[in-house]
Amino acid sequence: MKTIAIDAMGGENAPEAIVQAVLQAKAELKNTRFILFGDEEKITNLIGQDKERIAIVATTQVIKDEDEPVKAIRTMKDSSLVVAAQYVKQKKADALLSLGNTGSILACGIFIIGRIKGVARPGFMPTLPVKNSDDGFNMIDVGANAKSRPEYLLDWAKMAAYYAEKIRGIKNPKVALLNNGAESDKGDDLHQQAYELLRKSNLNFIGNIEGNELLDGKADVVATDGFTGNAVLKNIEGTSGVLIHLLKDSLLNNGPITKIGALMIKNALKGLISKFDVDKYGGAVLLGTDAPVVKTHGRSDKRAVYYTIKQIDKILSEKIIDQFRQEFNHKK
Amino acid sequence: MKTIAIDAMGGENAPEAIVQAVLQAKAELKNTRFILFGDEEKITNLIGQDKERIAIVATTQVIKDEDEPVKAIRTMKDSSLVVAAQYVKQKKADALLSLGNTGSILACGIFIIGRIKGVARPGFMPTLPVKNSDDGFNMIDVGANAKSRPEYLLDWAKMAAYYAEKIRGIKNPKVALLNNGAESDKGDDLHQQAYELLRKSNLNFIGNIEGNELLDGKADVVATDGFTGNAVLKNIEGTSGVLIHLLKDSLLNNGPITKIGALMIKNALKGLISKFDVDKYGGAVLLGTDAPVVKTHGRSDKRAVYYTIKQIDKILSEKIIDQFRQEFNHKK
Repeated sequence: MKTIAIDAMGGENAPEAIVQAVLQAKAELKNTRFILFGDEEKITNLIGQDKERIAIVATTQVIKDEDEPVKAIRTMKDSSLVVAAQYVKQKKADALLSLGNTGSILACGIFIIGRIKGVARPGFMPTLPVKNSDDGFNMIDVGANAKSRPEYLLDWAKMAAYYAEKIRGIKNPKVALLNNGAESDKGDDLHQQAYELLRKSNLNFIGNIEGNELLDGKADVVATDGFTGNAVLKNIEGTSGVLIHLLKDSLLNNGPITKIGALMIKNALKGLISKFDVDKYGGAVLLGTDAPVVKTHGRSDKRAVYYTIKQIDKILSEKIIDQFRQEFNHKK
Repeated sequence: MKTIAIDAMGGENAPEAIVQAVLQAKAELKNTRFILFGDEEKITNLIGQDKERIAIVATTQVIKDEDEPVKAIRTMKDSSLVVAAQYVKQKKADALLSLGNTGSILACGIFIIGRIKGVARPGFMPTLPVKNSDDGFNMIDVGANAKSRPEYLLDWAKMAAYYAEKIRGIKNPKVALLNNGAESDKGDDLHQQAYELLRKSNLNFIGNIEGNELLDGKADVVATDGFTGNAVLKNIEGTSGVLIHLLKDSLLNNGPITKIGALMIKNALKGLISKFDVDKYGGAVLLGTDAPVVKTHGRSDKRAVYYTIKQIDKILSEKIIDQFRQEFNHKK
């Protein structure tokens, strides 16, 4: 039996969307238990009679988006997130899911759950859209680490490639390094050295990729330092968000003919917007911790949470963490 | 009399678009001379009889996009770009314009024309779109430097703020630092130290900005290390390019009603696409060199080149380089 610890209080639609997603997932995943952390009364009312394979752990605090992450996990010991992470640490659950404050989720993963022996630093990895397919690509690290070293990038690439193969079903995934040019000598010392480590590894390393090529689908896995990865990930969200905002705006404010035209292209637009809806690609996973820690977007609805639960269930079924232990434990 | 050295052979529409833009600009800028470098016969045929304030310098080589930048400027001594840069170095021209290979243009600026005394490293600065106005913002450095130091970022911010004020007419421009969080202690050592330098400077420093906020128009100037800046600039181009591609694609491939709708929204779409057309915002300027070096997009048409010439003319009229000499010459 697998057990998923779920912070029921994080995100805009908590706890309703989260509890509903758990009920839907539970009906399908017969070999999985769920522990929900948060406001006992609210959660109990939402669950109703259906308590098979569901437990509730009452907590009294909620970490908010504006709270300083590390301070929050140190001081809010009875928050839904921290207590859920403690359950994972104590092996009372196998994985952690939250829709809350990204920094606090990372801090829980790194400081409470802890890393796999031999992995220098866990890396944070979303799946992002690519142009001409529904596959997407994995980028790691996107901000668990402000300071990176070449060997971190190698570890991240290895874990992300394994994830892409086992969870996303991509055979021999193509791995690239985000850099400022195509040639092997591009970049600063960090990226030149990371290039060498990746080239010598047994990964399917295809070389450097530049910022304009990420969404082209050239690579299935992109390794990057956490600082650049963070700027680029946020920039993908920002740029696509601004463009879609401006598009909607210009369709509404260009006279009646444009408005009628806008109605006629509505379905085509929906498809486009859904492609850039990061929720569609599931939660972002912290790789390298002793149990899967998955963060999904704060505005996720029931459907997005449901898919993320299925994603976590697959990560547990494929025993990815055991595989990482085997891969990395012999190191130092 | 100001003199602009123009590489007539760079870019997709060379030399036609470039020569036509020069002729148009010349009619307006009565106090400016133009020296065109490139294929003498082709350029002469395009210019016709109108040789007042226009000179041609015949060159035999053209640096291509795929050429390795530093090697190209060392070995292709009779290329239109290198000879144009030599003219600026020798004070036979006051500024350099090219549509060619970005890396080679940067290398010409740094190695041939050279930096202003007291500026540690020149920075490369485009003007980029923001959501709710036509103003845009300046980001520096976007890739002249793979390795950056905190004091470089301070120099770049100072020069970009001066540019934003004098050339773009923004009073007391708001300066921000691209970082991985809002708080002052965010980022690696480089960004923490750059934050302190900017905070203590006399710039209108508004603090950190994150990758998703760049196009919101919060800041008029964004200082960033050249590695991250390069990744983010290219990513803005890549993400907006993919979105516009997918938008066009979905309008054409969703049946006849969508196609008719697409015709009806055509004008609204044009406005949107033009907003993300970086050419509209003029060329990217290398700041910190001993003369203005401006690169405009390789696919620029006559109109884009014409605006870039006007931009360079204004940079020369405002005597920006003299100002930078005054600001930085006393340093070491």
